Amino acid sequence: MAQTRVIDPREDLDGLGKQVLNQLKKVQNPDISLPVRTLTNIFFDENTKLIALGDKVSHRTYLNVAHTRKFMQTLMVAAECKKLLNQKQHTTTSIRDLYYILKRTLPGTEENTFEEQEESDPLIEDIEAAMNTLRENLHLHAEQKGSLVGPLFLREPKFNTEADCSKLGSSGYGIPSICEPDTVELISSDADFVLVVEKDAVWNRLNEDRFWKKHKCLVITGKGQPDRGTRRMINRLHKELKLPIYVATDADAWGYYIYSVIKQGSINLSFVSDRLGTPEAKFVGLTTQDVIKFNIPKNVTIKLNEGDKKRIQELMNYMWFKPKEWQHELKNMLQVGYKLELESLSNKDIRFITEKYLPEKISKKDFLP
Amino acid sequence: MAQTRVIDPREDLDGLGKQVLNQLKKVQNPDISLPVRTLTNIFFDENTKLIALGDKVSHRTYLNVAHTRKFMQTLMVAAECKKLLNQKQHTTTSIRDLYYILKRTLPGTEENTFEEQEESDPLIEDIEAAMNTLRENLHLHAEQKGSLVGPLFLREPKFNTEADCSKLGSSGYGIPSICEPDTVELISSDADFVLVVEKDAVWNRLNEDRFWKKHKCLVITGKGQPDRGTRRMINRLHKELKLPIYVATDADAWGYYIYSVIKQGSINLSFVSDRLGTPEAKFVGLTTQDVIKFNIPKNVTIKLNEGDKKRIQELMNYMWFKPKEWQHELKNMLQVGYKLELESLSNKDIRFITEKYLPEKISKKDFLP
Repeated sequence: MAQTRVIDPREDLDGLGKQVLNQLKKVQNPDISLPVRTLTNIFFDENTKLIALGDKVSHRTYLNVAHTRKFMQTLMVAAECKKLLNQKQHTTTSIRDLYYILKRTLPGTEENTFEEQEESDPLIEDIEAAMNTLRENLHLHAEQKGSLVGPLFLREPKFNTEADCSKLGSSGYGIPSICEPDTVELISSDADFVLVVEKDAVWNRLNEDRFWKKHKCLVITGKGQPDRGTRRMINRLHKELKLPIYVATDADAWGYYIYSVIKQGSINLSFVSDRLGTPEAKFVGLTTQDVIKFNIPKNVTIKLNEGDKKRIQELMNYMWFKPKEWQHELKNMLQVGYKLELESLSNKDIRFITEKYLPEKISKKDFLP
Repeated sequence: MAQTRVIDPREDLDGLGKQVLNQLKKVQNPDISLPVRTLTNIFFDENTKLIALGDKVSHRTYLNVAHTRKFMQTLMVAAECKKLLNQKQHTTTSIRDLYYILKRTLPGTEENTFEEQEESDPLIEDIEAAMNTLRENLHLHAEQKGSLVGPLFLREPKFNTEADCSKLGSSGYGIPSICEPDTVELISSDADFVLVVEKDAVWNRLNEDRFWKKHKCLVITGKGQPDRGTRRMINRLHKELKLPIYVATDADAWGYYIYSVIKQGSINLSFVSDRLGTPEAKFVGLTTQDVIKFNIPKNVTIKLNEGDKKRIQELMNYMWFKPKEWQHELKNMLQVGYKLELESLSNKDIRFITEKYLPEKISKKDFLP
């Protein structure tokens, strides 16, 4: 069930500033509370089958040398968000822009307010979670990342454009970072399902081979871990157009985790799983069990290193990898001691993946849950 | 003037293999020669105003522990290129795919053939340069990167699609990695010029504000250092549609270098400057001199660090930064001791860049050469 969020968080942002100001007036140590967005404060909601945020709160205080810089940065981000919301009605700002707007050298010092965008991005998420709002309501977007191809008609009212996503050429439709009903209207689709592939290279192969035409589907890639826009698009294609979602990643811990994020949401964005997760998604491959099933030559496999093994153990402990099929696959991976990439199928034949592997797995419904 | 390249390099790839085989038969140390693709073997061609490759050749030999791994990798890449060319007529493979196809654990060892895509990518360039061919003729493409928006009609014959790049919504047209006349036909354009911006965030701002409509232009971003497809698109828009090219980057050594790559080509791809460089491009900003001209508050600037200063000195020594206007700007940057980002203009107003800065500089032709 979709949660309600604060649409215009300016009042709350203002409240945050006033709170700090009051603390200063009372000569108290300025202190802001933020929901804890780590594994210690999330749980797997058995009803919704989504990762959800718990109640733990952490304190970020000014008079704590470990916090001081981050405290300043948090207030800078909050203040700029409010300023931007005041300045504009219909424009958006990228989170990269926000970083550059705030990056500067503190006068009379060698110290910069921010050194990396990796410093400001999580603070935006902190503010989203603390204000019970969404990045979209702060009019902030990230870099456009995902691509889509196939029979889908959509409209972008703010740009006054329409698109038939089967007629956009080699690059397909670039899924916008903000993929909400007011920015992207999903009009109709003839597709029977949606295939999400981990990597751009596989997406290109499927597009070049017109897989989407032959199999009446949409093909999406998030180019690695999908961004929010791509996950939201998948969520909406399932909810609004009732399309089944099949996900194909590499047979490794990283690929399986990507699948789990598409399905159940992620740990650090657990407060927004209801919009980004699609619990009905199914995993279509690749697995280490396919090596025997499809007679994949062993010499394309990659030996697990210690990091891989540790990460597989972690996955096995996540509640959402508890289904027996996943425990079986993860154990099998540890046992055979290797991982492999979807691209390694090209070693058999460049079109093996489009002509044999995916069609066979999909038609037999040979999925992991 | 465009050089001639080997269209089907299979014979030459075969020759490379035979050469190594002969060396082995003669119990010689296997040895392949490759053009040196570093600063020591390039020159600035005053006629074409492009970076060109010299005659120096290096030897990669098998019985040299520093070369052995790379020697094996080079032959693996060459062999796979030939195999792929034999297998297919009209399909392409991504350089990422190629990496994954070749990545595996050597049987009976813990050693992988490749660990990072950064290992295989330069080898493809080595082979291109050594075989006097092009990556496009090896049917290899990279990840799609650049975006374009504005009044341009084009056709992708292999996908049987046409596009009006002013009607593609928030993400615009994704410039394909292979942007050759047989994959992307440039049909017509009403634009008066092309504006290339370094960053996606700025491109988004310009698209959202419909800068391209108001100023009758195309707006392109390569999202940082533009990839080959984007540079080829810029080159072709200038050559085929006679459009002037204006480039806007940050005021820092990295941004200025991006401009120089668009204009004169790059050091490691000097063998293909005639296709990727556009010597007639002009630089529209940002410069440190703009800080006074546009009354930009000093508090948005970033102090130069030692790395910045060293890089500025390097740029000053490149032949293609010798024009006095560039020497003046680089000296000025060292003197004022700061750099700044295009996004910092948003500090004045979120639309300062689209409504004031760029229109004023373009209409006054306030360019650097």
